Amino acid sequence: MISGTTKIFYMVAHPIHHVRTPEIINPLFRKRDLNAVMVPIHLSREDFKLGWEAMKRTRNLGGVVVSVPFKERAFDLADEVEASAGELGAANVVRREEDGRMIATNLDGRGFLDGVLNGGTDARGRDALVVGAGGAGKAIAFALAKCGVRSLRVDDVEAARVEDLVGRVQTAYPALNVGKAPADLSSINLVVNATPCGLNPDSDPLPVDGSKLRSDILVADIIMKPRETPLLKAAIATGCDIRYGAGMLDAQIDLMVAYFGY
Amino acid sequence: MISGTTKIFYMVAHPIHHVRTPEIINPLFRKRDLNAVMVPIHLSREDFKLGWEAMKRTRNLGGVVVSVPFKERAFDLADEVEASAGELGAANVVRREEDGRMIATNLDGRGFLDGVLNGGTDARGRDALVVGAGGAGKAIAFALAKCGVRSLRVDDVEAARVEDLVGRVQTAYPALNVGKAPADLSSINLVVNATPCGLNPDSDPLPVDGSKLRSDILVADIIMKPRETPLLKAAIATGCDIRYGAGMLDAQIDLMVAYFGY
Repeated sequence: MISGTTKIFYMVAHPIHHVRTPEIINPLFRKRDLNAVMVPIHLSREDFKLGWEAMKRTRNLGGVVVSVPFKERAFDLADEVEASAGELGAANVVRREEDGRMIATNLDGRGFLDGVLNGGTDARGRDALVVGAGGAGKAIAFALAKCGVRSLRVDDVEAARVEDLVGRVQTAYPALNVGKAPADLSSINLVVNATPCGLNPDSDPLPVDGSKLRSDILVADIIMKPRETPLLKAAIATGCDIRYGAGMLDAQIDLMVAYFGY
Repeated sequence: MISGTTKIFYMVAHPIHHVRTPEIINPLFRKRDLNAVMVPIHLSREDFKLGWEAMKRTRNLGGVVVSVPFKERAFDLADEVEASAGELGAANVVRREEDGRMIATNLDGRGFLDGVLNGGTDARGRDALVVGAGGAGKAIAFALAKCGVRSLRVDDVEAARVEDLVGRVQTAYPALNVGKAPADLSSINLVVNATPCGLNPDSDPLPVDGSKLRSDILVADIIMKPRETPLLKAAIATGCDIRYGAGMLDAQIDLMVAYFGY
């Protein structure tokens, strides 16, 4: 029951209609008997800064979940950022302190590890390839580096994004073997798809050459819908262990609730 | 279920903890199967204008209910005001149009008539005394004038407020017999309490001299808690018809939902 004492949380994105977090976090608030509610807030790019200033001044606002295309702006505007956001230059969860200070973090990588790779256990010691160096790919690359993969390769259709991400990870983890994608998968035993390839299963190409998969490669996808992407289907057909992307959102939402102080 | 397609409504006030509207309007939204939710928003006086600008730019915001102390600011900031707000210089409900224009009205008076005085039927032709010339008293005085009382008297501890309100009503309704409160209730057969007297039933004085009540006077109170104020108790003891304030909020919420376009 929303009352005058309810703590308010926003989910900010553009566009807004597709966001899933309120649908998942509100039942969790209720289940845990928390007097809190999250509502979606639709701001245009040019209005984000004004909206942010109003959020800082909204005294019963507990925090904000930030989605595309505002993660970099939230990072820039935050009064304080945690290391996970600092590495990426992007924030996706912001806690509002009583005095209006906005403290930002990025839970994308940890959500991926917790929800897809068994807390990172599945990745430790592996030779990993992350396909896709956008927001999600960046977060995943740093999370894999942090959890202790043996080597890390990054692929993307844009060479500059690969170079940038490899450089950033190498700077943060100087001892790690990091580089751009190899010609084939012979040196790889963990493949993570962080591209949108597979959202449209009938028309999207596979993110890696399916004929190069081997049964000792663990294959993970972050796409939630469809649950079983063409990449995962190909991996299953090859006899690979696979990990579905579906768990990533639930895992991240648990982390959000904890970050908000509950 | 709040999703990315849910229309958002705010209730803005300072302080915020006591507001009741979200508790009543949200079950109504659900009952009518409307994909809409209202959340309380706590802004300080100095932040209202910034908050208002952000509301204008929040693309999935359907409207705002404005409470104390922001009703006059909302009136000033609105892009367009309806007559009920114009008379009072105060708005309590704002509809946000798709293009961000904010259209303001004031439903306090009509909520009072609908919820307390049987749509105004109870007041028509009566000689009314409104005690209290604050925000609620003003709205009620105009509503009574509009619904066709025979005469209207206004009382308040601040003489200047009485003079101001009498002048405004007289200007809007030149044919109506309007003036300040008489020395006793001999010329009155409708008393409306629009003061806070009665919120603290053990210590508050009666808003009128209880010994002057007569059984032909209809006595209405806008206080919702306690339901039966000391004034209403005295009226019952005298044999008067009475009207409880409790219905005012429900009635106004029906009007709000309609104003929001549902």
